[in-house]
Amino acid sequence: MRIALGLEYDGSAYCGWQTQPSGCSVQDAVDAALSEIAAHTVQSQCAGRTDAGVHALGQVAHFDTSARRPLSAWVRGVNALLPKSIAVQWAREVSDDFHARKRATGRVYSYLLLNRHERPGVHHARIGWHHRPLDLGLMQEAASWLIGTHDFSAFRAAECQAASPVKELRRAQIHRFGGLILFEFAADAFLHHMVRNFVGGLVKIGEGAHPPVWLKEVLDGRDRERAAPTFPPDGLYLTAVEYDAAWGLPAPLAGMPSDVFMSAGLASITLS
Amino acid sequence: MRIALGLEYDGSAYCGWQTQPSGCSVQDAVDAALSEIAAHTVQSQCAGRTDAGVHALGQVAHFDTSARRPLSAWVRGVNALLPKSIAVQWAREVSDDFHARKRATGRVYSYLLLNRHERPGVHHARIGWHHRPLDLGLMQEAASWLIGTHDFSAFRAAECQAASPVKELRRAQIHRFGGLILFEFAADAFLHHMVRNFVGGLVKIGEGAHPPVWLKEVLDGRDRERAAPTFPPDGLYLTAVEYDAAWGLPAPLAGMPSDVFMSAGLASITLS
Repeated sequence: MRIALGLEYDGSAYCGWQTQPSGCSVQDAVDAALSEIAAHTVQSQCAGRTDAGVHALGQVAHFDTSARRPLSAWVRGVNALLPKSIAVQWAREVSDDFHARKRATGRVYSYLLLNRHERPGVHHARIGWHHRPLDLGLMQEAASWLIGTHDFSAFRAAECQAASPVKELRRAQIHRFGGLILFEFAADAFLHHMVRNFVGGLVKIGEGAHPPVWLKEVLDGRDRERAAPTFPPDGLYLTAVEYDAAWGLPAPLAGMPSDVFMSAGLASITLS
Repeated sequence: MRIALGLEYDGSAYCGWQTQPSGCSVQDAVDAALSEIAAHTVQSQCAGRTDAGVHALGQVAHFDTSARRPLSAWVRGVNALLPKSIAVQWAREVSDDFHARKRATGRVYSYLLLNRHERPGVHHARIGWHHRPLDLGLMQEAASWLIGTHDFSAFRAAECQAASPVKELRRAQIHRFGGLILFEFAADAFLHHMVRNFVGGLVKIGEGAHPPVWLKEVLDGRDRERAAPTFPPDGLYLTAVEYDAAWGLPAPLAGMPSDVFMSAGLASITLS
């Protein structure tokens, strides 16, 4: 039978989602715990293969097993075996044609950026940081140029393995909560480093290095060389994966990713 | 000359504030960085000696130095030498009769508690967790019994070194933001484990194990044996230390700790 899982993790201790011979990945830890509960080797498939240092509040994965276990075994039983930085949030039995990645209709990524003079202490590996003041209005204007179906080659990492650079960016929102800036991007799918490259460009605009329309010029140019540097992974979260309701999976928490953050406890940000 | 510092840290990697022969403490890390900038041995004194695993958003410390450095050296210079989980937020020159602990007129501690079915992943060491539903109204009613000047022996650790168990609790507030519960306590000073024992008792009441008035009976009994177990340090933050404005230190961030948490985006939480 096929089981789908909802997963939350702090990616700062891992070399990314994808399994590695050294066993340093989130998937290695998840598969080891699932295999122990199943009493056979389990290989999971995820919806979004997060990079090293990238976090997830709403990762979805699936796996096949011949073991008959109550769903709670795939949640609490697996959580008892997982490192503290990874936690299963839910488990559902799904039909065999469900696939965490292929059936996903959308993904939501968020980037948390601390915008204050001094670097973070409490959330050091779980939040980005920029010390120069950022203008929210300029960044919002620039972000609006990104919305729609575009060739996003200008924001694509050289190593990106996606079949096409054309993606549909459905939402690009930027919120400020005191010293905290939250970027939220929703798309059908994302290219490698796309969100971190968006944030790199938006920060350049927010600090006044370029006018907002520069981001449209970068987009239209389709040339990675013209874009801003990739932002660090620290503040990046896979917040939600969307599926057709017919699969019967729990709805992504609360809609707005900002709600998800706070329900996951990211509250202790100091402001100045 | 005497310098005062504002400090933020993730206490999960440390054996508490207080210096230890093994060098595992926050103070050991801070003093090492200060000593390197000063080019002589520096010993800092803090306002609140946080326990192992307890965090700070608004710790204050002072130290004496013969070195003449711009204030930025005590902030950015020290931050460049500190581990990423500790960050100086500000530095001020103060007169020699300032003392971080002795001159403090009040402290504010907060406890962040995730109240949902499954344990946290992303914030595992920086948030407490309780899986049974908690009734906010019952806990608020109970907390109101604690306010005022009382002998808090019932909430005092056996190892507590305070001269007197009598403290003035000025504020005890509990807020819910979806799946997150924020406890805030303000007092002239706190006994060892006092906040963690408050939270332990309030959670018992919130889940219905005792009526709210039980907390008053525990308080009046002055007997630690009657109280609930001490809650883990994970969710505990020293949020602010208060001083007379005449010292010229930066005001505690954003006033009420709840404002700090609120402006960090807590306002719009909903949780499934």
